[in-house]
Amino acid sequence: MTALRLESPGIVAEGGLTHRARRLGIDTGQEAVIYLRLDSEIVRSEGFDSQTRIQVRAGDRALRATLGVVTGALLAPGEAGLSEAAWARLGATHDEALEFSHPQPLASLRHVRAKTHGNRLDSAAIAAVVRDIARGYYSDIHIASFLTACAGNRLDRQEIVDLTRAMVEVGERLTWSRDRVVDKHCVGGLPGNRTTPIIVPIVAAAGLLMPKTSSRAITSPSGTADTMEVLAPVDLDAAAMRRVVEREGGCIVWGGAARLSPADDLLIRVERPLELDATGQLVASVLSKKAAAGATHVLVDVPVGPTAKIRGLETARRLDDELRYVGEAVGLQVRPVLTDGAQPVGRGIGPSLEARDVLAVLQNDRDAPADLRGRALLLAGHLLELAEAAPTGSGEALARAILDDGRAWRKFAAICDAQGGLRTPPVAAHACPVMTSLAGRVAAVDNRRLARVAKLAGAPRDRAAGLVLHVRVGDALVAGQALFTVHAETAGELAYALAYARSRPGIVELETAA
Amino acid sequence: MTALRLESPGIVAEGGLTHRARRLGIDTGQEAVIYLRLDSEIVRSEGFDSQTRIQVRAGDRALRATLGVVTGALLAPGEAGLSEAAWARLGATHDEALEFSHPQPLASLRHVRAKTHGNRLDSAAIAAVVRDIARGYYSDIHIASFLTACAGNRLDRQEIVDLTRAMVEVGERLTWSRDRVVDKHCVGGLPGNRTTPIIVPIVAAAGLLMPKTSSRAITSPSGTADTMEVLAPVDLDAAAMRRVVEREGGCIVWGGAARLSPADDLLIRVERPLELDATGQLVASVLSKKAAAGATHVLVDVPVGPTAKIRGLETARRLDDELRYVGEAVGLQVRPVLTDGAQPVGRGIGPSLEARDVLAVLQNDRDAPADLRGRALLLAGHLLELAEAAPTGSGEALARAILDDGRAWRKFAAICDAQGGLRTPPVAAHACPVMTSLAGRVAAVDNRRLARVAKLAGAPRDRAAGLVLHVRVGDALVAGQALFTVHAETAGELAYALAYARSRPGIVELETAA
Repeated sequence: MTALRLESPGIVAEGGLTHRARRLGIDTGQEAVIYLRLDSEIVRSEGFDSQTRIQVRAGDRALRATLGVVTGALLAPGEAGLSEAAWARLGATHDEALEFSHPQPLASLRHVRAKTHGNRLDSAAIAAVVRDIARGYYSDIHIASFLTACAGNRLDRQEIVDLTRAMVEVGERLTWSRDRVVDKHCVGGLPGNRTTPIIVPIVAAAGLLMPKTSSRAITSPSGTADTMEVLAPVDLDAAAMRRVVEREGGCIVWGGAARLSPADDLLIRVERPLELDATGQLVASVLSKKAAAGATHVLVDVPVGPTAKIRGLETARRLDDELRYVGEAVGLQVRPVLTDGAQPVGRGIGPSLEARDVLAVLQNDRDAPADLRGRALLLAGHLLELAEAAPTGSGEALARAILDDGRAWRKFAAICDAQGGLRTPPVAAHACPVMTSLAGRVAAVDNRRLARVAKLAGAPRDRAAGLVLHVRVGDALVAGQALFTVHAETAGELAYALAYARSRPGIVELETAA
Repeated sequence: MTALRLESPGIVAEGGLTHRARRLGIDTGQEAVIYLRLDSEIVRSEGFDSQTRIQVRAGDRALRATLGVVTGALLAPGEAGLSEAAWARLGATHDEALEFSHPQPLASLRHVRAKTHGNRLDSAAIAAVVRDIARGYYSDIHIASFLTACAGNRLDRQEIVDLTRAMVEVGERLTWSRDRVVDKHCVGGLPGNRTTPIIVPIVAAAGLLMPKTSSRAITSPSGTADTMEVLAPVDLDAAAMRRVVEREGGCIVWGGAARLSPADDLLIRVERPLELDATGQLVASVLSKKAAAGATHVLVDVPVGPTAKIRGLETARRLDDELRYVGEAVGLQVRPVLTDGAQPVGRGIGPSLEARDVLAVLQNDRDAPADLRGRALLLAGHLLELAEAAPTGSGEALARAILDDGRAWRKFAAICDAQGGLRTPPVAAHACPVMTSLAGRVAAVDNRRLARVAKLAGAPRDRAAGLVLHVRVGDALVAGQALFTVHAETAGELAYALAYARSRPGIVELETAA
């Protein structure tokens, strides 16, 4: 989100009163907040109250922000405090003169109201809403209202298509010199499911182009970019990414700086705490990012399980259906693959521990996690077939051949080299196992609580923190056997994660002989 | 919203790390925000991020708040900064030890999801949501989602009844020793429509009990409590209010401290920026406050006009219908009265200028605004009939007799005296008229923009600020005639309001001879 060139001067163009910009160092999430003193002339003369939306101008840059009114000594007279989001988006400098005014009314809100009333929105209406969101005109509560109005299957297929197109439209778009550009996405919710760093070198070694941008964790113990960063630099700009892809046919970089589908970046951070089941939003989110990245053939991994993001087959099938339909409408060949989401994939959860699993699979270690290897080969096989690099039914065999004979590992090492050099995953200072006090057979594993243990241990901030899962559903255990080992950089975090884990024996659920 | 006694200890009860409470003086609206340093052990060990919800404990008091992570020198190590809402609700003291943990998951969100999917909610589900809102468990985006899910006529009548009952249930409830307790409400949007201080003394003089609690302005240039405060103290506690009502049969006090329907106080502040048309919400809001205030007979003034809150007759009739139905279900006899909302009522807009109109009507001044007098008599007549203090068809005549012979004024003076003493409205330091440059007939008056002029001039913060409207729809004007006069306490605010007014000639729309 960059600052806007000034399009609308705001309602009150007069005034001329300015305040000096001061960076307060307050992280208010994605919502830009500007703090003014209650006794400031601007608050008094404009009739501004806390939580009102204000327009701020610095030279020819402008931004809408939410006002926080301040009493006491936090700000000196004449100062305006900026939250981190406000500071970054406005591109403000210390002591720069800021002018304030009332913003123009948010005209696109009437479309949100129309959707709330159950009316369908045409493409122009959807484009207007998405444009205003991408500009930062919507506060978080406006975004929450839009998401709720569209959730509950209230978007028809054409609306999802229009939403996807509008989200692509407001961002950057990458272009590539090939007809076929492959990509993959996982709808998430499954810890350790780190197939991307295995799939990319396989399909790149098979001659396909796969310029993969990945995300960092928002609420999970690791995002693919976090895991990959343990193995190589991922913070590449567009030009550097292009050099890697041109040389090696693939990359695995952080997509955050690329401004692909920036409206989506704003929507997903509000969507998560609302816990909405919004298929249309999910489809538009996934496909807008892929279309913007210049992909033509997209594989979507849809883990289904009771503690995964997609919990039931019915939801999964509707998602499958919508992904294919909308993908075709926006020029993408999409293949969703429903996978087992009953338990984590691989053993490690947390950046470094996941990276070790990835290396084990790529290097054909004898005790590499079989489920991660199998999942990566299944998905790589689908992708090879989808992009017609392998005949139907033979994709997985081709993928296996590329992995088994070391081509995948050599390609991965070459990609890491091109991204800035292969690194060795760090090892945490502290580790401690959590044991079962009972004997029995593993009936279920709670993905969400395992993720929380890993986060309490310090992941993803501490790269080496997280946990290693030692058991799989169906395993027969004896009392005293280790369920998982928690890794942490500090003794305090280790104790914290262990206390949580031990207070919740149901993280690994056992069927005991009655 | 007071702090909760500790019901749920939060997910991580261990820890023992505490931070010292510091009041930062930041007004974040109704949402409680707590600021912690990025490098604090709690942020690190709990894995807290900005915008996550956290549970804070101080002794046996607890609060849920949104986290703001801070870098830089804003907080010293070991300090936790509290926003004004967090400070007040927790009842924190300087340097008090605060403990933090993850809050329990918000179970009632599943009902919001169900409503988003179009399912009806039973009374237990609605009660669970309202209880969590009143406790402060919902962040503003959760509230925005709930409001959106219920808007667009998605609440059936029984749901509105259940919502109203639930909102009464979570707050305080006043009781009175009489069978009949009358009340009134105006759905708002019409500047200057200050009938309450005229109606209360009329019906009290007629022997009815009218313990009126009013609100302060949230986004308007004046609330009834703001206008009344110019004439007498309104900030009375429950015991003081009861003494006034027992002595005089009526009062006009600020209702904010009474905690009547506290969930509603939280909902309306989020509803307003969303600009939702949510009849069900409006009905529950109005009637829950009246039921909680102990009313039995309630008159609702519904101004209808193109720039009023209710813009069309269809919406007004549905509102009328719902108010009667839901009122009966919760034990209230409700009479909605549709009134003309095409233009402001009276001449003054702003606390003191409205108070002058009220005094002129009560004192039977010859040039008292006839529309305000007429509107107050109409509504007082309805109320007298509704409470059977006058036979059908004779209420307005009785009200007029009480006003004309001075009983209303004497009762008003006695009420003011009981509330702490009658005051004289202040006069602003600066005033300047806005003239029409054209001749013509007044076709329309824009309520919203007039309200904005009054606010830019300083109302309601500066009691004497606002404007006096000199023309009515239908008046024939000559060029150079004054449309309205802006009043302000400072030259800067006067200039500000005038600049806005002069840049928008459509505030008073003229039909000119072609």
